[in-house]
Amino acid sequence: MSYDLWYWPGIQGRGEFVRLVLEGAGISYRDRAREDGAEALMADLAARQGIKPFAPPYLVDGDFTIAQVAHILAYVTDQNGLGTGSLHTDLNLIQLQLTVTDIVAEVHDVHHPVGADKYYHQQKEEALRAAASFRDFRIPKYLGYFENALSVNGGPFVLGAKWSHVDTSLFQLMEGLAYAFPKRMAALETGYPRLRAAREAVAQIEGVASYLASDRRIPFNEEGIFRQYPELDA
Amino acid sequence: MSYDLWYWPGIQGRGEFVRLVLEGAGISYRDRAREDGAEALMADLAARQGIKPFAPPYLVDGDFTIAQVAHILAYVTDQNGLGTGSLHTDLNLIQLQLTVTDIVAEVHDVHHPVGADKYYHQQKEEALRAAASFRDFRIPKYLGYFENALSVNGGPFVLGAKWSHVDTSLFQLMEGLAYAFPKRMAALETGYPRLRAAREAVAQIEGVASYLASDRRIPFNEEGIFRQYPELDA
Repeated sequence: MSYDLWYWPGIQGRGEFVRLVLEGAGISYRDRAREDGAEALMADLAARQGIKPFAPPYLVDGDFTIAQVAHILAYVTDQNGLGTGSLHTDLNLIQLQLTVTDIVAEVHDVHHPVGADKYYHQQKEEALRAAASFRDFRIPKYLGYFENALSVNGGPFVLGAKWSHVDTSLFQLMEGLAYAFPKRMAALETGYPRLRAAREAVAQIEGVASYLASDRRIPFNEEGIFRQYPELDA
Repeated sequence: MSYDLWYWPGIQGRGEFVRLVLEGAGISYRDRAREDGAEALMADLAARQGIKPFAPPYLVDGDFTIAQVAHILAYVTDQNGLGTGSLHTDLNLIQLQLTVTDIVAEVHDVHHPVGADKYYHQQKEEALRAAASFRDFRIPKYLGYFENALSVNGGPFVLGAKWSHVDTSLFQLMEGLAYAFPKRMAALETGYPRLRAAREAVAQIEGVASYLASDRRIPFNEEGIFRQYPELDA
């Protein structure tokens, strides 16, 4: 048994949060659109029946299809015995993952504040203002929140010694923010020691480390969620 | 046993998606900040321990706290025996609810494209452009998606004859869009007969009908998610 992951090839994007958990936990999957291309993804999505995904990424498990990153990760956690055994704790983790989803949407909207139907250069003026708000108010608010969550069980992970889908997502968030906003994140870095420790600890998870060293890890680029536009950093 | 719901008093906002399910299903709850005020909400949130909510709404169930609308609704569904008995179907519904969450965030960002730290009048120029994209591309894309979901079991609800948290959320979404974008929605209305039927059917659920007729239903206003700014409609 193996999952099929469908996501846009060529970018990390939202799919990366799913890839990191699958790779970290050593769960077998095929990254279908990287094998077959974007047209195959669009054809597959269009051909799905019943309650379809609104957008990639989605995971196919036999005759069941599931979309939405946090929802996919909760499902993968449950199906692969990666839960904590405590319903309340598992729900806490999903809640944190949904908050990662929120900041990821905001990161995207910084370079697309007017709409996804237009290119960045068509909304650059608006993006300059949106980026200032995001850097000044939103990054500290979210990072402070996640820093606190990492303190609950003493770190380096949210649960303490055991990593979960939240930790790989916090790793990806910190990697992405450092790529997109290098100046801002350098200035903030010392204020969030637990996030820094979690990021380092995730990079050392065996499955994650070999993934990051492989060509399966697509480099950040300016087609993805986290984009390095120097004019949006400060 | 009764839940405590904590959400900003004075607006429907994201809390309304929770209220509609609790009211529709006849589940006992206290709307704490409507009783005690916004300062009590801020004090309660600040005093919470462990994995805290990032923001309201959140639901308190004894010693357990849960935030994020779709997550709250999945929990309430599960705890109150409102599920379908099929894991895959329950997960399909959560996936749809998460997609409602996405469009609700986009609706908010139409009037706040630069950032939530600034007033609408400080980002009105950007909002005019964002609203055009939202009206032209995003509303039809989302409504077409939900219309299709309502076709899967023949309607009037996503599951067919039995309503779920997705239906009350689609009702609230359609009510909100009609309030915020009356011209655009009037032009689109005939294209989505299943959404219209679902909206009418939800309004007739006994618990929902008595809620809507009560003073517990706060009217839409320009402090909430759905705001009637005529210049953003067309």
